[in-house]
Amino acid sequence: MKLHWSPRSPFVRKVMIVLVETGLSDRVTLVRTPVAMDKPNLDLVADNPLIKLPTLVLDDGVPVYDSRVICAYLDCLAGGRLMPEEPRARLVAERRQALGDGFLDVLLLYRQERNKPVEKQTAAWLDAFALKVRAVLDTLEAEAPALAEPGFDLGRISIGCALSYMDYRFPDVDWRSGHAALAAWHAAFEQRPSVVRSQPDETP
Amino acid sequence: MKLHWSPRSPFVRKVMIVLVETGLSDRVTLVRTPVAMDKPNLDLVADNPLIKLPTLVLDDGVPVYDSRVICAYLDCLAGGRLMPEEPRARLVAERRQALGDGFLDVLLLYRQERNKPVEKQTAAWLDAFALKVRAVLDTLEAEAPALAEPGFDLGRISIGCALSYMDYRFPDVDWRSGHAALAAWHAAFEQRPSVVRSQPDETP
Repeated sequence: MKLHWSPRSPFVRKVMIVLVETGLSDRVTLVRTPVAMDKPNLDLVADNPLIKLPTLVLDDGVPVYDSRVICAYLDCLAGGRLMPEEPRARLVAERRQALGDGFLDVLLLYRQERNKPVEKQTAAWLDAFALKVRAVLDTLEAEAPALAEPGFDLGRISIGCALSYMDYRFPDVDWRSGHAALAAWHAAFEQRPSVVRSQPDETP
Repeated sequence: MKLHWSPRSPFVRKVMIVLVETGLSDRVTLVRTPVAMDKPNLDLVADNPLIKLPTLVLDDGVPVYDSRVICAYLDCLAGGRLMPEEPRARLVAERRQALGDGFLDVLLLYRQERNKPVEKQTAAWLDAFALKVRAVLDTLEAEAPALAEPGFDLGRISIGCALSYMDYRFPDVDWRSGHAALAAWHAAFEQRPSVVRSQPDETP
């Protein structure tokens, strides 16, 4: 299999963590495919017309995206240990994955907006992004005791990647203040070998 | 169950279609919950800190989001007829759902960008959105014969909703030109009772 990949995409990181957790890393060839909102990479169109990472291509040429579909596919190949089987537990894990993914969507838009020249920024959007970040962090803090229960799944991977992305791209935001239980859970998350091995890389 | 709802959200429309297709409409109470990028609705925070629609709340208070998780949950409640069981067919349907959802994400951002005052717009983004729309339409045109095969699933629902959203919010874009097979598939999609019943509504 071929994975269109970049070392700084948080959605790619989810897949990299799953590859290590499932033991499937050796089955995938990584192809460095740069993408940027303002510079669509035309090489990616044939495999994914949304021109987004991650995009997986199976050996018979079938494309698989987005990160959620790729993670579920890989987990299924390896026996399905990263998603609970019991329906209610599964629903919680799926909702957590959507929360982590949605948090990342907010952070990516927030970063793009605040990196614009001031005269192009929309103040109401910046305020809305900041409000959503606080709301998500407060929700996750309330959920931290449940997150800290035994188990590791696609929901926790997504939430952990979003918090690590905050550290990476928003080092000015002290999200741990007022969110001590969440910070403790995230510190444990960052100790996992799959998470250590998928740190963002500044190599150009 | 309670569904935070708006009559013009294309992601809500996916859920409304699934409710009709599964016969579960009577099980859900619709709660009109306006959201806008620049006016976060604080009433929604307790159920979904991302402040996004659709958000479903189960009778015991458990929140379920995003649209993909809600649709899978409802389909599962009703016996799972909207997702193929055979693994390869399921993977295709999941990739199509991600394509439709990603297409909608592009269209929502595109609309927000072009509705801004010109001096706040970023030309490279508008160009990138237009390029992605063309790339997605070309991919879907190539896939139209497969879409037209028997079967109706969450992938087709998502793609159909995205094309209907183009008609609704981008009436100036003649997407049918050069995409005749896709246009024919979409015309049939729009005949389905579940799709007819979930038309966007301009009621304030």
